[in-house]
Amino acid sequence: MADASAKNGHRAGNGARNGKGRVWGGIDLGGTKIEAVIVDARGDVLGRARHVTPATGGPGEVVKELYGTLGEAAHAVGIEPAKLVGVGVGVPGSVDANNGTLSHTANVAGGWDAPYPLASDLGDLVGGGKVMLGNDVQVAVAAEYKLGAGRGHRSVLGVWWGTGVGGGLVLNGVPWRGQGSAGEIGHMVVKPNGARCGCGRRGCLEAYAGRACMESKARSAARKGEKTILFDIMRDKNRTRLSSSVWASALKQKDPLATRLIERAIDMLGVAIASVINLLDLEAVVIGGGLGSRLGPMYMGHIQDAMHPHLFITERKPVMRIAELGDLSGAIGAALLAGPRM
Amino acid sequence: MADASAKNGHRAGNGARNGKGRVWGGIDLGGTKIEAVIVDARGDVLGRARHVTPATGGPGEVVKELYGTLGEAAHAVGIEPAKLVGVGVGVPGSVDANNGTLSHTANVAGGWDAPYPLASDLGDLVGGGKVMLGNDVQVAVAAEYKLGAGRGHRSVLGVWWGTGVGGGLVLNGVPWRGQGSAGEIGHMVVKPNGARCGCGRRGCLEAYAGRACMESKARSAARKGEKTILFDIMRDKNRTRLSSSVWASALKQKDPLATRLIERAIDMLGVAIASVINLLDLEAVVIGGGLGSRLGPMYMGHIQDAMHPHLFITERKPVMRIAELGDLSGAIGAALLAGPRM
Repeated sequence: MADASAKNGHRAGNGARNGKGRVWGGIDLGGTKIEAVIVDARGDVLGRARHVTPATGGPGEVVKELYGTLGEAAHAVGIEPAKLVGVGVGVPGSVDANNGTLSHTANVAGGWDAPYPLASDLGDLVGGGKVMLGNDVQVAVAAEYKLGAGRGHRSVLGVWWGTGVGGGLVLNGVPWRGQGSAGEIGHMVVKPNGARCGCGRRGCLEAYAGRACMESKARSAARKGEKTILFDIMRDKNRTRLSSSVWASALKQKDPLATRLIERAIDMLGVAIASVINLLDLEAVVIGGGLGSRLGPMYMGHIQDAMHPHLFITERKPVMRIAELGDLSGAIGAALLAGPRM
Repeated sequence: MADASAKNGHRAGNGARNGKGRVWGGIDLGGTKIEAVIVDARGDVLGRARHVTPATGGPGEVVKELYGTLGEAAHAVGIEPAKLVGVGVGVPGSVDANNGTLSHTANVAGGWDAPYPLASDLGDLVGGGKVMLGNDVQVAVAAEYKLGAGRGHRSVLGVWWGTGVGGGLVLNGVPWRGQGSAGEIGHMVVKPNGARCGCGRRGCLEAYAGRACMESKARSAARKGEKTILFDIMRDKNRTRLSSSVWASALKQKDPLATRLIERAIDMLGVAIASVINLLDLEAVVIGGGLGSRLGPMYMGHIQDAMHPHLFITERKPVMRIAELGDLSGAIGAALLAGPRM
């Protein structure tokens, strides 16, 4: 049912486009969960739902679950999915927004490598408004720019500090996507020939600040006999990974290894953010993501202290903010992709 | 005579604005020389002149010499400066383009620190079209984008590799100035706690790749007894500094110190450029500046080799080009500031 003539999306009907009470759907496809929201023209969240991301089954299974989560959010506010004016999806991986395809992703349903027409397949199920794809971090940053911590600034860098370190840019009010893959602040080089990154390269910011790389480093230090309560806390919380809350507890208890690794991460966040500011001279920086939201309130001063020695224009420091939209920034940002104009 | 009501410039009359054969002036204010051009609506250079930059006397002396150089270029093609539709000036330092002031500069006429109304003072002398100010590297990159090596690309990073390392960005066809000071790729951090930079900080790209910092490093190595022909070549050429041509000669003769320092510079250029590409996902990179223009043809492959291990999207390498407009890119870019639309 997708209309290939729609240049920037996949229309499958007019839905509620001409009616009153126009509403949009937004879906954030994460590695562990799918978050869906229904928003009105102001971006206010009317309904929401959360499902677990399929661990296997490939893209077909993912599309079904996206639709299931969206449907649940829509029905929660008494709306048929087909009545949505548009639906946006934020996805982790390389997106071709014009073709509505997700080129490759490592983290979802076993991963896939060939471009998959996620927008048109989901559009067929929804049967309503157009479906738009965007990168998950880019849409979350756009949401913070319009509705959250970036409000009132024209040019914003978003740093999403979590399992990895993602980034998004809004320049003069417009999201900057480059040729489709802009924002990889996590793979800016902060130390040539430095620590090994999950991407296979060396010295990336993510190799120091990404939660997955920090966990590897902590496990290797523990194996070498360094004392830490990180893994005791993890077991107490019934986790198998060092989640943001595990790090937060260990830091609260002044665990030396956790403290050292977080300070190392923050030093490198400071280096990379200052480099971006020197290059782009932006007004504001928004820190989000799992670790950013959890640790930001306590560590924002540390991040600023880490940046300041490297800032070229010392009399004009960027405004620093913590993301305000929380877990929903991705889903709300995805909904904004599909159309509400604010 | 400046009209404060002109929001983005300082008009002092209509000049030749409504006549045929409309021409514009462009001036590049450098640390050692002032370069002026007269261009037509296509950006073609009709006339040019070069004067020595005053070493003392402050901004008043500079304005007189800017006018003298512009006048000489204009008279060379039989035009009165008052008939210029507009005049652009590229300056080394912090510019407030809206107010037409040069905030501070270290390299010109003894330097100054208070914002100086260079645009309106020069406008009074010219008595013709509006006078616009811009950063010297930013306007040079904009010229390469429109008329030179960046033609045909929508998003371009310019890296001006000379005494320092400057940068300029064109994003989707529009020069990106941030809050007025964007482009400082030379002060992106390539090695935390690394080499001392002329700006006083540590680990900046310029600390490794700027000609001034490379010269300091070479002098210190020579003092410590390291063998090099760099300073012999300098004296043979009657220079007091290691100019780009001195470096080029030493490299040609395979001087080990020169080779080592240039390779170190190129490694760090590769790190910084790759980081910018990972962040902004740009189409093309233009290498200019004294060292860039001189060494680019021989070393472009080295720069690419230094970038590639750090590029996140390996299947989409940016197009790499050497600047084409040579010494005049700054003056032509300055003229473009003032108006010709291409």
